[in-house]
Amino acid sequence: MAMGSYVRNAWYVAGWSNELETAKPLAVSILDEPIVLFRGESGAVHALEDRCVHRLAPLSLGRCEGDHLRCMYHGLLFDTDGKVVEIPGQDLVPKDARVRSYPVVDRHSWLWVWMGDPAQADEALIPPAVGLDDPNYILGHGFLDYDAEARLINDNLLDFSHLTYVHANSFGAGPEFAQSLPKLEPLERGIRYTRWTTSTYGQSARKSDTPVDSHMTYDFLVPGVLLMTGGNYPEGTAAKLDFGRPAIADAIGGVTFTSQAVTPTAPRTSRYFFSWGPHVQHGDEKVRDALMGMADMAFGEDKVMIEAQQKVIDRTPNPRVMPTAHDKGVTIFNRLVERLAKEGGTAANQENTACP
Amino acid sequence: MAMGSYVRNAWYVAGWSNELETAKPLAVSILDEPIVLFRGESGAVHALEDRCVHRLAPLSLGRCEGDHLRCMYHGLLFDTDGKVVEIPGQDLVPKDARVRSYPVVDRHSWLWVWMGDPAQADEALIPPAVGLDDPNYILGHGFLDYDAEARLINDNLLDFSHLTYVHANSFGAGPEFAQSLPKLEPLERGIRYTRWTTSTYGQSARKSDTPVDSHMTYDFLVPGVLLMTGGNYPEGTAAKLDFGRPAIADAIGGVTFTSQAVTPTAPRTSRYFFSWGPHVQHGDEKVRDALMGMADMAFGEDKVMIEAQQKVIDRTPNPRVMPTAHDKGVTIFNRLVERLAKEGGTAANQENTACP
Amino acid sequence: MAMGSYVRNAWYVAGWSNELETAKPLAVSILDEPIVLFRGESGAVHALEDRCVHRLAPLSLGRCEGDHLRCMYHGLLFDTDGKVVEIPGQDLVPKDARVRSYPVVDRHSWLWVWMGDPAQADEALIPPAVGLDDPNYILGHGFLDYDAEARLINDNLLDFSHLTYVHANSFGAGPEFAQSLPKLEPLERGIRYTRWTTSTYGQSARKSDTPVDSHMTYDFLVPGVLLMTGGNYPEGTAAKLDFGRPAIADAIGGVTFTSQAVTPTAPRTSRYFFSWGPHVQHGDEKVRDALMGMADMAFGEDKVMIEAQQKVIDRTPNPRVMPTAHDKGVTIFNRLVERLAKEGGTAANQENTACP
Repeated sequence: MAMGSYVRNAWYVAGWSNELETAKPLAVSILDEPIVLFRGESGAVHALEDRCVHRLAPLSLGRCEGDHLRCMYHGLLFDTDGKVVEIPGQDLVPKDARVRSYPVVDRHSWLWVWMGDPAQADEALIPPAVGLDDPNYILGHGFLDYDAEARLINDNLLDFSHLTYVHANSFGAGPEFAQSLPKLEPLERGIRYTRWTTSTYGQSARKSDTPVDSHMTYDFLVPGVLLMTGGNYPEGTAAKLDFGRPAIADAIGGVTFTSQAVTPTAPRTSRYFFSWGPHVQHGDEKVRDALMGMADMAFGEDKVMIEAQQKVIDRTPNPRVMPTAHDKGVTIFNRLVERLAKEGGTAANQENTACP
Repeated sequence: MAMGSYVRNAWYVAGWSNELETAKPLAVSILDEPIVLFRGESGAVHALEDRCVHRLAPLSLGRCEGDHLRCMYHGLLFDTDGKVVEIPGQDLVPKDARVRSYPVVDRHSWLWVWMGDPAQADEALIPPAVGLDDPNYILGHGFLDYDAEARLINDNLLDFSHLTYVHANSFGAGPEFAQSLPKLEPLERGIRYTRWTTSTYGQSARKSDTPVDSHMTYDFLVPGVLLMTGGNYPEGTAAKLDFGRPAIADAIGGVTFTSQAVTPTAPRTSRYFFSWGPHVQHGDEKVRDALMGMADMAFGEDKVMIEAQQKVIDRTPNPRVMPTAHDKGVTIFNRLVERLAKEGGTAANQENTACP
Repeated sequence: MAMGSYVRNAWYVAGWSNELETAKPLAVSILDEPIVLFRGESGAVHALEDRCVHRLAPLSLGRCEGDHLRCMYHGLLFDTDGKVVEIPGQDLVPKDARVRSYPVVDRHSWLWVWMGDPAQADEALIPPAVGLDDPNYILGHGFLDYDAEARLINDNLLDFSHLTYVHANSFGAGPEFAQSLPKLEPLERGIRYTRWTTSTYGQSARKSDTPVDSHMTYDFLVPGVLLMTGGNYPEGTAAKLDFGRPAIADAIGGVTFTSQAVTPTAPRTSRYFFSWGPHVQHGDEKVRDALMGMADMAFGEDKVMIEAQQKVIDRTPNPRVMPTAHDKGVTIFNRLVERLAKEGGTAANQENTACP
């Protein structure tokens, strides 16, 4: 199965920055391409095709030497551009002996890899996630591996009406949540969701003893990054702002931030990265741990449902969906992905790059 | 692989009735089709396609509400006919929003699902198995999952000469058993086997201290149901009856009944249901437990052999068999299946039934 | 995937002779063909197609009767030529009822099976491995199953420059080992490698307190058999012999012998057999155990690398290699294999041999 339905000209989260130790190569897979990440002695992070030009051994079993990486099968040495600079037992190195090198950026605690044309790698396109070191938030983090295609996880995150059903026992949104539609705004590389709930005692993650107006908003950005915040505001705030965006400084409780990223690792597998926690003025480590406990339960519920959905899809010859009113965001986002996927050209040549 | 070589217009055993608790949906697979069984509050059993029209999530992860079933991904509600009656966040329900509904009958302790044209579902075609509540028998029961196609298990049950070899250590039939052929009679939807063994001290499951005539008979019925009984009779009974069918009331010992059903779950997997036990006048719970202990050992021997046979078949490009004299019943039954499979039309459209 | 790239007219190691107990059939797979080995009451070893002509049950689940083998599904009896000699319940045996029989030889502690035309089975082509009963050596032995095609293991054994990298922590060859090339000599059915290392304190398996000339040589023979010996000689021996082959009797230490065989079991799996140990004049059981400990570690390192390499190859659409100077032997051997594979004709008919 081709991964052609995904955007290539985008930054994909390859891992948590704190997972990548100096001089310990890490094998990852993005869009079904084998990639080795390594942090050289200089501290810089590099991303190469994880496949030696010689006999296709994985470079992730290799050894870091300075900022170079040596294949530990027969000893070929690669520089950070993927060029072979040494072949044991041989004086000359063919000038086209190289593996593919990927642009990679260490930002917001994530390692972002650009899967498209390196010449178009624009760091301005990296979504503004909140890193673990952000002084405004106290964040927990983790990741989950899915036996399901990334698109199904994206679809899940693009339709929160599932909170009422999938998460009946964790987030615990009531039936009224699934009955109402959020406000949607298309963005250049994504979509923005907003919900004001007025005169409420709050929800699972942000309860209140007195009635408040509760605000929740998230951007869902290409290739599959969710950035969500929200909080409780004095009753009447929603009307006063004409249901527009409030200033976080005006919140009276419950402000949190979650960054989530869905990375397609192969046609039928994905890795789902996430962080969540309270604003420093609205919680502490204890609140963070409570939120993460809730998230662990809820994300497990999603995984059970989505992996089961994938199995049904896989055994259905020509699977067709029947969109509902809640699928508006799903449809808008998937059309955007389709357009950007086409603009980004076809998938890169997946053959290895050994000289012919 | 298609399941076209199986009869669609037939009742397949989907499960033991006592396995299906009220309001706990159960996922099963028959002829490679995903089916959800559920017992509503009314006590009635329903069988629907296990695949939501919306995004193909399995309804077996859903929630029973009265006699309705709610998909727990985004909340669509289905009635017992498979029709969608509620879509959260949406006022109208498209009138063709429905999943397939299967005729299902709870009888003889088994749940029988009709896989063919619902208009032709005829309860008179349900094989007369002996249920666990039959006052004449004291039955144990169970099931086994096979990594083998159902046809191989049927073939096994259609040629008992394997008792001498596969079951040398359990049922313990001697070489003379494999040397002699049983009497066969074609039935409208199956085949009947009969064996009289005269002046014998009986076999494993029905030993005798004095010489007796031992009778054993079973019907093997479409789609793969074995109903077997037998017993010991006074010496001379066989001759007196001209080797015809005796009356159970005349038996002097060893009368038992076993019902067995082979259900193709997928092209290479099956579920094998069975019960066995003595007639109330020929045994008690202790005899039943002894028989079930013997059955557990013997059915395990079959499973080892048949799963190994499946593996050999799978690695053989054009597998061919060489029938022997004992294969007469196998051949008759498989021709019957072939004919009924053709009459039943091609396999149902396996695509999901979401509106186009 | 076809196994057509392997030589059929060759002796493949099917197992250690001491693994095959009398009257205990053993299932093996060679070139993806199911084979049952059995040692009859006469002590003779036989090799038959492991697939009954009747319903394709594996004969390896069968029972030895004298030097015959009975299928334990429905009791067909096979002689050592693969001919059916008895069918229970049937008087006549069709004269073409037979399974394939393979030439098999018990020699040098290995069971060798000829996979090509039986008429061409020439025992003179069995490689001169050193058996466990050889009085000159004290050998340990074992085998490893690989999730990788045999060719990749052969390639590994045909380029020892990997010792410097893969075995950095076990055999511990230094970088200078990978920088120098061994001497190669083509053989009729293989290739010979030789290395003299002069004025050295020896290597991992043969250290020396005083400077010596160290000699190492191995033949790598079709279909994938490595026979290696070596030892330490007085300083100056290499020059005196003009870097030719020394007499083992002149060695002053460190003489060992290892026999290794790579058997393709299926397109993506292999079994790797090996023995190793000192010459009786250069070591004892303790030395043997130390060598086997080193081998266990090193062969595990190979397995990790080669199975990882296989996975990368499998996910690469058109995998291409870039040979280096060290690949000369690999190239010579693989061309020889290609030529012999063609001469041996196409792969045998893999269909089972039941009468049509």
